[in-house]
Amino acid sequence: MSQIIQPGEREMEEYSEEYQNLFNKSRNVSALSSISQLLDWDQETYMPSDGANARSEQQKVIAGVIHRERTSPEFKRALEGLIDIESGTILVENLSEPQKAALKMWRRDYINEIVLPSEFVEEFAQVTSQALSVWRKAKKKNAFELFAPFLDKIIQLSQKKADFLGYKDHPYDALLDLYEPEMTTKEVEKIFADLEASITTLLKKISAAPQIDDSFLFGEYDHKTQLEFSLVLLNAMGFNRSRGRLDISTHPFSSSLHPTDNRITTRIHPTGVMSNIASVMHEGGHALYEMGFPVEQFGTPLAQAISYGMHESQSRWWETRIGKSKPFWQYFLPVLKKYFPEILHTIDLDTFYKAINKVQASLIRVEADEVSYPLHIIMRFQMEKDLIGGTLAVRDIPDVWNEKMTKLIGITPQNNSEGCLQDIHWSLGSFGYFPSYSLGNIYASHLFTAFEKAQPDWEAQLASGDLSFVKSWLNENVHQYGRQYTIPELMQKVTNQPLSANAYVEYLTSKFGKIYGLDDNS
Amino acid sequence: MSQIIQPGEREMEEYSEEYQNLFNKSRNVSALSSISQLLDWDQETYMPSDGANARSEQQKVIAGVIHRERTSPEFKRALEGLIDIESGTILVENLSEPQKAALKMWRRDYINEIVLPSEFVEEFAQVTSQALSVWRKAKKKNAFELFAPFLDKIIQLSQKKADFLGYKDHPYDALLDLYEPEMTTKEVEKIFADLEASITTLLKKISAAPQIDDSFLFGEYDHKTQLEFSLVLLNAMGFNRSRGRLDISTHPFSSSLHPTDNRITTRIHPTGVMSNIASVMHEGGHALYEMGFPVEQFGTPLAQAISYGMHESQSRWWETRIGKSKPFWQYFLPVLKKYFPEILHTIDLDTFYKAINKVQASLIRVEADEVSYPLHIIMRFQMEKDLIGGTLAVRDIPDVWNEKMTKLIGITPQNNSEGCLQDIHWSLGSFGYFPSYSLGNIYASHLFTAFEKAQPDWEAQLASGDLSFVKSWLNENVHQYGRQYTIPELMQKVTNQPLSANAYVEYLTSKFGKIYGLDDNS
Repeated sequence: MSQIIQPGEREMEEYSEEYQNLFNKSRNVSALSSISQLLDWDQETYMPSDGANARSEQQKVIAGVIHRERTSPEFKRALEGLIDIESGTILVENLSEPQKAALKMWRRDYINEIVLPSEFVEEFAQVTSQALSVWRKAKKKNAFELFAPFLDKIIQLSQKKADFLGYKDHPYDALLDLYEPEMTTKEVEKIFADLEASITTLLKKISAAPQIDDSFLFGEYDHKTQLEFSLVLLNAMGFNRSRGRLDISTHPFSSSLHPTDNRITTRIHPTGVMSNIASVMHEGGHALYEMGFPVEQFGTPLAQAISYGMHESQSRWWETRIGKSKPFWQYFLPVLKKYFPEILHTIDLDTFYKAINKVQASLIRVEADEVSYPLHIIMRFQMEKDLIGGTLAVRDIPDVWNEKMTKLIGITPQNNSEGCLQDIHWSLGSFGYFPSYSLGNIYASHLFTAFEKAQPDWEAQLASGDLSFVKSWLNENVHQYGRQYTIPELMQKVTNQPLSANAYVEYLTSKFGKIYGLDDNS
Repeated sequence: MSQIIQPGEREMEEYSEEYQNLFNKSRNVSALSSISQLLDWDQETYMPSDGANARSEQQKVIAGVIHRERTSPEFKRALEGLIDIESGTILVENLSEPQKAALKMWRRDYINEIVLPSEFVEEFAQVTSQALSVWRKAKKKNAFELFAPFLDKIIQLSQKKADFLGYKDHPYDALLDLYEPEMTTKEVEKIFADLEASITTLLKKISAAPQIDDSFLFGEYDHKTQLEFSLVLLNAMGFNRSRGRLDISTHPFSSSLHPTDNRITTRIHPTGVMSNIASVMHEGGHALYEMGFPVEQFGTPLAQAISYGMHESQSRWWETRIGKSKPFWQYFLPVLKKYFPEILHTIDLDTFYKAINKVQASLIRVEADEVSYPLHIIMRFQMEKDLIGGTLAVRDIPDVWNEKMTKLIGITPQNNSEGCLQDIHWSLGSFGYFPSYSLGNIYASHLFTAFEKAQPDWEAQLASGDLSFVKSWLNENVHQYGRQYTIPELMQKVTNQPLSANAYVEYLTSKFGKIYGLDDNS
């Protein structure tokens, strides 16, 4: 049995001079990346609006510095003294397994970085920083045409990036690999096709069942009181506020500068209570992942996330597996009632649990129910693939978006703000990111099978209001390793089973079968 | 008559390829410096407490990058193509006067930078970033011994810095020159000796006069209401909140990332109304200076402050010459009364004006009255000189501080938190900075003589609540030039008189002579 290790408590190891040298160089790069994170966080929270142009210039300059440091001859020399860059053969002896794994990841990152020219990296950073401000305006004004030229430019740059990075089958493979190492467009297509089939069947049954009334979740939910309850949740999750903070932004996000500095944001609707709760637990889950990395490994791959999908597995774990479970609310509904007694005093647990899990077609991804959520991802994945493949033009995005929404989810946006302008990702140039959201759900469910085995009384523990064992289990089984294992390796190690989407589909089918009283998942 | 130029409205000039090349390189450095400013600002406002170590590492890394960029062979080549670094002779023709002035400043900065080794710059940044957190703790806990070893290290580093920079008479000259170009320790000693004599005479007369009752300035002044009034003041001053923001911090400060992104902080005492008002107008004055630089010159010396003293002249101008003047309160007292009717409704203008200008020995520099303020600076200057000169040891600071306070200002701190731990500057390694505060007052008063001539009805205008003409006058006569002129040049240009402290002493003598009913300044 491995011991539970608290962040920051590991002893400092002694390294060889060569390893220490690479570590130091990499640590400098990580400090610079933290700075870039702060620039992003500030841009979304406190930056004065007219500072946007200067900010995009700062982002450009720091991106250039980071890229130069990552690809400098000194960095290369430090790396190739330890590992053969061409073949990946480790050249020194007496390294621990984590150190060997770190070297492989350093090599992978170096190869992905060295192929990108500095001017390209700087241009990408500047264009996306500008695009972010334009997207925000365009969304506010429902003016896709404002954003379109920037999106067009970003797609061109992303195609160029794919060419620099190289790919076998589809340019999208190159971008996907940045977020989900070793994952291919074909594999995602296969996984998503199966998922779409299962979900569509489930959704059909649900739509035939009696509908759930969730109207009490909407009403006058005071902004400040919601924010106070957010902090109660974060404290319960073990989110250490000496190492993190919560702010308000248009689009909730999480930004990690260091295991000791993790910032999340939420969005509070004064007329609904669940949007903020879901955001806080979701972003809090992201933050707990980064807070759980070994502090003394900051700067190495051993204090980094395996993939964006793995990151998302942590956020969705807390948002859905915990935050939309019945035992969680067995404890927290009475707490929430103290904050909003007028609206909630008559609501019992079963009514509340059903309401927060109501399945209902939604235009907005981040507010989608658990069942239809993957469909939002599947349509974005299809569009991204076609945009990067050159078979879909930017000007056609609104129409294609609306058609897909209608076909897959069954509703049609009335305008682009609630349609193709809803997400921040394209303005950030994050093509290849969206699949990670659904992969994250799959990873989370797969890991959850091991959690349930290890903690057979997890429901009773949740119901007692104790969430610390959940965090400890994740710290021990996932967080502490950073990128020591690949996704398939970690999944196998934790669950003794190869990764599959089965657990995810079974979870959805079973949970929503019970909620909607469907016949034994037949 | 020169035209009033609004920030950002100047046309883009065409530059020679060489000049543009230097401009671009310098602009990158300025973007990096802006980032460092943001790290500072964030550390003082929103950073989670445990993030302090990571922040000091970020500061170290970015300081190293900035230093390397400023001293890179490419930067040197770009510079020496335009100006001879050794002699200062400009090597190209057809440059405008502002461009020539910019080149001289670029050269000056380069020479000051190239003498500092990278490792030194990084160490300085890291030590001071750590010291900042320690100072904050030490101040809270009244534990000078916590801060002492850091201060000792900072003084050693500052002495080393002085050696690197070089000096003729006293190592303090080298540090002073970084804040007030061309100013020497001897000159400051002379100015301060005269000032001390005049002020001591004035103070003696005041202390013999009947005391002023300012008790109504203290009481229950609600935090939120004070913050609201702060925004009223900033708006009136022409502080553009699309280009800046106001936050709360332990020690009020201003942080400028760019002419379009200027952040100030204030400190609000719930039991006194003037501390916040003074801070907001003071820091707002700093911000207006930077907001007034020509945006398109960002990255060149033409969008930089001439000196710290000049910066301080702008903050003290607003805080004292405007914010502690009677015509200002003729308009704003009725406004303030609307915010705090219970406490202030019976207070008339004359009573209020006298109260906010009450002369009373204070332990805290930033809360000192206008008359005794310079004495706070004079004692810090004397101590800094001795610390850097090696004739005063860190362990003796508390005793020497308390003795000087008693002798010069007439009161003795009860503990080090309200004594030698009160200021942030030493933790930042800003030795040489303090004299700028008094020089700033001198510059402000000297410039004010020209302002009064140009705007003979300024008091009537202030009394009507219009402050925009004040900002315009400063924009036109000071801000728009950046570092085009040296302090003596600008003073001469604006006032047609060489700089002297006369106007400052006359202002203090006349204003406080009237307030305290002294006999014709005899």
